[in-house]
Amino acid sequence: MMMQRIKMICSYDGSAYRGWQRQSNARSIQVVIEEALSKMHKHPVSITASGRTDAYVHAIGQVFHFDSEKELDEFHWCAALNSMLPKDIRIQKAELTDSHFHARFSAIAKRYEYLITDRIHDPFIQKYMALEKERLDVAYMRECAQLFLGTHDFTSFTSAKIDARKPRIKTIYGLDIKEEDGFLRMSFIGNGFLRYMVRMLAQTLIEAGKHRLRKEEIRRMLESKDKQACRYKASPQGLYLVWVSYGGKEDESELSYAYHALSSCARQ
Amino acid sequence: MMMQRIKMICSYDGSAYRGWQRQSNARSIQVVIEEALSKMHKHPVSITASGRTDAYVHAIGQVFHFDSEKELDEFHWCAALNSMLPKDIRIQKAELTDSHFHARFSAIAKRYEYLITDRIHDPFIQKYMALEKERLDVAYMRECAQLFLGTHDFTSFTSAKIDARKPRIKTIYGLDIKEEDGFLRMSFIGNGFLRYMVRMLAQTLIEAGKHRLRKEEIRRMLESKDKQACRYKASPQGLYLVWVSYGGKEDESELSYAYHALSSCARQ
Repeated sequence: MMMQRIKMICSYDGSAYRGWQRQSNARSIQVVIEEALSKMHKHPVSITASGRTDAYVHAIGQVFHFDSEKELDEFHWCAALNSMLPKDIRIQKAELTDSHFHARFSAIAKRYEYLITDRIHDPFIQKYMALEKERLDVAYMRECAQLFLGTHDFTSFTSAKIDARKPRIKTIYGLDIKEEDGFLRMSFIGNGFLRYMVRMLAQTLIEAGKHRLRKEEIRRMLESKDKQACRYKASPQGLYLVWVSYGGKEDESELSYAYHALSSCARQ
Repeated sequence: MMMQRIKMICSYDGSAYRGWQRQSNARSIQVVIEEALSKMHKHPVSITASGRTDAYVHAIGQVFHFDSEKELDEFHWCAALNSMLPKDIRIQKAELTDSHFHARFSAIAKRYEYLITDRIHDPFIQKYMALEKERLDVAYMRECAQLFLGTHDFTSFTSAKIDARKPRIKTIYGLDIKEEDGFLRMSFIGNGFLRYMVRMLAQTLIEAGKHRLRKEEIRRMLESKDKQACRYKASPQGLYLVWVSYGGKEDESELSYAYHALSSCARQ
């Protein structure tokens, strides 16, 4: 039987899910997509994502792959799977690719965005942005963010439970902080991120913005390479996996729809 | 013991609730608020709203009242209750009022808004707007909407299960349909609305916008005063109870915050 590898780009509102990863006792995005694909195929189908997202984290451009014996074109893959998925998980694009493509191992860069608002009395926003009523010193946050640019051992900014054998050296290519109408958008681009790393960096910068952490303290935190060094972790609701790059055509222009979705969602 | 009547204006994201009304087997907004108030008071407290909202329907300016022996000012009523409520239910305003005020019987007008979008691939919007991929003839919808203005017996546009003894004559003061960036906003102002009435009027107008219903058919539907006449009911996700007027200061300017919230939420 000829198998075809399919690459898919999907968006999801993570509010109702306990994250990407299959879990024994909770509804995860992976399980919902695998169930839909398995129903289509009449046999179990597993998917592999570019990486996990935590509970309640959103995605604009998560990527996953799987192999299928079905002969559908890219348009019909999207339409067929979307018709079986709940409306808070949407396939944006399907691509027939070759078997060397791997959603996780072929990825060369990722962008996450973290949104923060002071509209703490708006009941419609709390699943989509972090709430922060204190005023933030954005210029100082930008200054501190410079510390994280480039290649570092990010041991201090990851889960204490992380596998000790995993490499903890990552490169951050960009870390921008932009003030938009009613919210703050932090944008992280890097070759990869450890578990909780974006949320820990985000909250560290928020604490700096409140003048509760000085740049020197953050520098020491980073240099200590100590899993206990950073006690800060931003809430998952503000986090979006925006795109995953494979070095090819899968760059920002391909995800322009997804970008539009993020920016309009952020304009909430 | 001196009792004080408290009037509150609240907003809620209805996505996670089975409507306003207390139910035996589901989480309702009324129950969540009553539980918080009962905990504060250390005895059961019941609240009375301006009216129910259906499952998954949102509110920007729902109004309810209750009586309390507690001596708190308006600011502290808001702060205390908000600290005990989930973040998708927010008290916007508390007012110490006299015992003649009744959230339901004193109301003289209400405004609902219904939002429709064609962004069917956006997973973040489906709990907050109705999805409609077909193009709508908005000019024709406006023309048909004229039929509903003024005082009518709306028997044809309500639940077939409605209590036969309830008066079904209501007055609609305004019914506007506005095209905004990426969505359509229908706004209904009237002295009151029967169960499902806004959603049935909205879907009837959407069907007219798709040229599946002619103005003459809608006129006959209205004139027939027949509970079976209208088979259309728009999904609850697009519906917002925006404000309830008591003829006093509680007019649109008082709810300017709430309006801001609605329009920014709608800009999603």
